[in-house]
Amino acid sequence: MERMNGAVLIGQSGGPTAVINASALGCIEAALACPDICKVYGAAHGIVGVLNDRIYDLTQEDPNELQLMRHTPSSVFGACRYKLADPLVDDTDYLRILDVFTKYNIRYFFYIGGNDSMDTCSKISGFLAEHDYKCNVIGIPKTIDNDLPITDHCPGFGSAAKYVANICMEVCMDTRVYDIGSMTVIEIMGRDAGWLTAASALAKARGLGPDLIYLPEVDFNMMDFLSDVTRVYEKNGDVMVTVSEGIKDKNGTYIASYFTDNTTEKDAFGHPKMGGLATSLANFAKSKINAKVRGIELSLLQRCAVHLASETDIMEAYEVGQKAFEYAFEGVSDKMIGLIRVSNNPYKSETCLIDLVDVANAVKRIPREWINEAGNDLRKDFLDYTSPLIQGDVQMPYKDGLPRFARLKRILTREM
Amino acid sequence: MERMNGAVLIGQSGGPTAVINASALGCIEAALACPDICKVYGAAHGIVGVLNDRIYDLTQEDPNELQLMRHTPSSVFGACRYKLADPLVDDTDYLRILDVFTKYNIRYFFYIGGNDSMDTCSKISGFLAEHDYKCNVIGIPKTIDNDLPITDHCPGFGSAAKYVANICMEVCMDTRVYDIGSMTVIEIMGRDAGWLTAASALAKARGLGPDLIYLPEVDFNMMDFLSDVTRVYEKNGDVMVTVSEGIKDKNGTYIASYFTDNTTEKDAFGHPKMGGLATSLANFAKSKINAKVRGIELSLLQRCAVHLASETDIMEAYEVGQKAFEYAFEGVSDKMIGLIRVSNNPYKSETCLIDLVDVANAVKRIPREWINEAGNDLRKDFLDYTSPLIQGDVQMPYKDGLPRFARLKRILTREM
Repeated sequence: MERMNGAVLIGQSGGPTAVINASALGCIEAALACPDICKVYGAAHGIVGVLNDRIYDLTQEDPNELQLMRHTPSSVFGACRYKLADPLVDDTDYLRILDVFTKYNIRYFFYIGGNDSMDTCSKISGFLAEHDYKCNVIGIPKTIDNDLPITDHCPGFGSAAKYVANICMEVCMDTRVYDIGSMTVIEIMGRDAGWLTAASALAKARGLGPDLIYLPEVDFNMMDFLSDVTRVYEKNGDVMVTVSEGIKDKNGTYIASYFTDNTTEKDAFGHPKMGGLATSLANFAKSKINAKVRGIELSLLQRCAVHLASETDIMEAYEVGQKAFEYAFEGVSDKMIGLIRVSNNPYKSETCLIDLVDVANAVKRIPREWINEAGNDLRKDFLDYTSPLIQGDVQMPYKDGLPRFARLKRILTREM
Repeated sequence: MERMNGAVLIGQSGGPTAVINASALGCIEAALACPDICKVYGAAHGIVGVLNDRIYDLTQEDPNELQLMRHTPSSVFGACRYKLADPLVDDTDYLRILDVFTKYNIRYFFYIGGNDSMDTCSKISGFLAEHDYKCNVIGIPKTIDNDLPITDHCPGFGSAAKYVANICMEVCMDTRVYDIGSMTVIEIMGRDAGWLTAASALAKARGLGPDLIYLPEVDFNMMDFLSDVTRVYEKNGDVMVTVSEGIKDKNGTYIASYFTDNTTEKDAFGHPKMGGLATSLANFAKSKINAKVRGIELSLLQRCAVHLASETDIMEAYEVGQKAFEYAFEGVSDKMIGLIRVSNNPYKSETCLIDLVDVANAVKRIPREWINEAGNDLRKDFLDYTSPLIQGDVQMPYKDGLPRFARLKRILTREM
């Protein structure tokens, strides 16, 4: 564990969140403020940028534009979904990474991402250590899915949860506007864990949310679904449902695949028809409920909606990035920064260190006991857990009625 | 033209907007402040509530809750899409309306809605006058579609336009995150007029918007579309498209029907498959562009997103409601309140009066000369027109991280 003079490199990976740039900013600002750091670099499209020697020199950016990263969605340096091979099988990429790190004297490497990115981080850390290249490697968590293990929660989740709950409230108001029955199904991201879909329960707790919530944590059964929606519809004359994209039946088959498997179905132009899960489920229920049905897919909107970000989430995302640099500079390596919930009321969190290898490729699901017995609603434990994470309303920088996002110069070192 | 003692009745009709309740509030507050008005009522689900004698007594509402209507989406009294018959053919409904108006001594009737609602308003106004029932009838415009004639623009449009432009900017950031090509098609509401889809040009003007914009004002041709997206994709490695739900070919056939006409195509459960227009167009282009394609439908979100409302729109919506009462109380009837643009920079508008009959069932489209020759982009005239309408960023009342919408008691008079 030692402090080193040298350069910092930051990469972003996987699907973006509303606050992934706030984490990058925390790390960048801490590094820029440190006199022992000669250069701060950003990798274009994550590890792919390292492999291709596409490295941005961040010391040339206008500090005011960097500041705007706090409220800029997507990943400003670009991201990738590139999976490194097992270094014992093929070390080509690792040798290339070692070359590029050596070329730029990278002594601190930060990778912001989810499960897969922590795997990448862990492998790089191990390879560099084995090759006696001194570089402190730290993972910075981000995911709207909130599915990283050990950490109490992940930066990115609170903002997406706030978006989902807010949208459910607005849509719920809208679906009640006519005096005719309606069924609305909202599809929310989450392949393996239902945290984000479950956030719609926050809207329900305000009296304006889904009647039924279906998660990947519980086996989905089409007939139970039909019976659930029919019961609610017959009682209320309306039914609103939220559903994770990743719901599966008891055999582990994605429900979405029920509606897309038949590749012989083509449209007028000979292309396979793609119906969203939400629309498909709504149409399926129409056989029993003769109501106006509508499927809504939140699509990319739920992960880039910085205009509805949680201020708590933004602050934690920034802090996690900042601490990542501080720990690394103190000599810590091969860890991910996690969050510990110190108290829930008033809410207070602290950062902690988690072994990268314990996070890589693992998935944290919602505890079954936080879900009701029927598997279609959340219990108070979940609300108590999630509610503090959506607090604080963002003050977006606007210009003439529209957001003013960071405009970075992104100057490649090789163009200098 | 005379001032009358009596009661006020307000109804909301058609698809809601983010600011339809702000208009109702303007009218309600003006009426409650007037000593000659004995009662202020709201019709449950518009004219259907009148026919069914389902009338809310608004004088019993908590003024603080009423105030929250300024930031509450959907129609708080409920809406309908009920079309009144021609009174010369069947006057049953009109006689019933006359009965109910007489019962409650309604002397001022306000109907908030779009083209169809102004038709309803006009017919009721005519019938009451013929039957010597003194009642001043005023239409209050609202529509996200912005397609009412004569008025410079419609309350509801500015907020929806701001939402569309904001979302396009966020999604555009997100689609650029990976280093692989992508094609994104966003479907926006608007059957007959493309104002709202065109608002995505505001995002484009900020460098973060669609490359191509398709509107109902221009005949849509699948091959031209394919050639447009291919050209952009080959140049940029990415292409983003916004499209009105109502685009039609030169024969007037909806493009959406190309993808849904074949009713023999069923899913695994025997139900017809419904693919959105956005997804269908994206899949269609995939034959030529071997990119990751994605269709996004803004669905209900674009009309209920009060969290991204334009403050200019909210203020105008309120003012139009307030003026409606003031004009009616001064004796004006059979008119819709319109907006005149007094100056564009600085922006200033005033209300005006428009004959209901001139608005009923008419549609205002984007002038062809505001659209580029190829029919896939907007010119500066459109930007200059729309830009002032999205100004001002709403300060939503939040409670514990989520919006605090109006909770009205909605006490029916017949339950009193």
